[in-house]
Amino acid sequence: MSHFSLFPLAWLKVNTRNLTTSNCRYTYLILFIKFNVVYNSASLMFMVQPFGQVPAFQDDDITLFESRAICRYIAEKYANKGTTGLYGTNPLVKASIDQWLEAESQSFNPPSSILTFQLVFAPRMKLKQDEALIKQNEAKLVKVLDVYENRLGSSRYLAGDEFTMADLSHLPNTQFLVEKTDRAELFTSRKNVGRWWTEISTRPSWKKVVEMQNV
Amino acid sequence: MSHFSLFPLAWLKVNTRNLTTSNCRYTYLILFIKFNVVYNSASLMFMVQPFGQVPAFQDDDITLFESRAICRYIAEKYANKGTTGLYGTNPLVKASIDQWLEAESQSFNPPSSILTFQLVFAPRMKLKQDEALIKQNEAKLVKVLDVYENRLGSSRYLAGDEFTMADLSHLPNTQFLVEKTDRAELFTSRKNVGRWWTEISTRPSWKKVVEMQNV
Repeated sequence: MSHFSLFPLAWLKVNTRNLTTSNCRYTYLILFIKFNVVYNSASLMFMVQPFGQVPAFQDDDITLFESRAICRYIAEKYANKGTTGLYGTNPLVKASIDQWLEAESQSFNPPSSILTFQLVFAPRMKLKQDEALIKQNEAKLVKVLDVYENRLGSSRYLAGDEFTMADLSHLPNTQFLVEKTDRAELFTSRKNVGRWWTEISTRPSWKKVVEMQNV
Repeated sequence: MSHFSLFPLAWLKVNTRNLTTSNCRYTYLILFIKFNVVYNSASLMFMVQPFGQVPAFQDDDITLFESRAICRYIAEKYANKGTTGLYGTNPLVKASIDQWLEAESQSFNPPSSILTFQLVFAPRMKLKQDEALIKQNEAKLVKVLDVYENRLGSSRYLAGDEFTMADLSHLPNTQFLVEKTDRAELFTSRKNVGRWWTEISTRPSWKKVVEMQNV
């Protein structure tokens, strides 16, 4: 059994959960943050995350920020637990994973994050949607998904034949866009992207995360 | 002696160079691309780099795109050659490097890239500068550099006491902003950031890169 704390930092609500995978059990603590509060730069939040953003993570002696750095650390430290090989088992596979993780970070994330905010969160926060920004970023996302469609025509997953961190990093924004907006077709109308999305989004571990979000 | 090809892909000009470090000699081939040409999506460029962007990289059987993925691969494969430990020598150091590499990718790069384009390349390309965009991104960069100033007050380099990929990834944009614009003070007026910039920008390997850019 391993223990770690995953904290979308918080002063609002604390949850402790056990996540059981096929191979082991992790205990983790989630600390939630109230988003519409301005935190003082001397607060604990800034001590843990110097940019004052979420998420942050703590495991034994290490505290980390930046979600992809956190994922890399967990995947390497717990490489033999749960789903193995999330960050590759040899240098060539690892390089391919890094390449598609960076594609997510640099090409997929910017437009998909803006669309997620504009289409999902702006209405919830009663903010006016920026139609020009939505149009501009939908066009950018279309170009990225055209590249993915081509890649996923010759490869089951983005980095190769196995599910890895490169696929995993696409789950959050895509989940919002497919399930919470009227833009699902961006993904589901593309043969290969649609097949890939069905495969990665129906994994038991991701379904558990979605269940938790809906609690 | 190791061989690899680093290609800001090209049809314009081919250079072969030897880079000699204190420990070994690398031979690499640089292929340059003509930036103001629209390449056909069936061209070699898109076969190597599916987003049609630069850079791309080839070493033995692997072809990679995305600069940070390329750097990670080189730093791991050649970990014992040239400057050792660029990507860390143990998991905790590696996690810290990943964290600050992500800070560069997510927080530093967006505003510094926009400023580099607007202040350096737009005038060269005879494009109109977007003053509002410059102002907005200068404000964003100031906030990032405030975080760096604090971090570099307690740590010689971003990820710890050694020069790593986390520092290295800041060199290109900072070089442009410090040397080719009137915004150098953003960096040099900050005590710790200024000290750090002097240290990392005067390393012989970086001076060699700058010399090559000026050829």
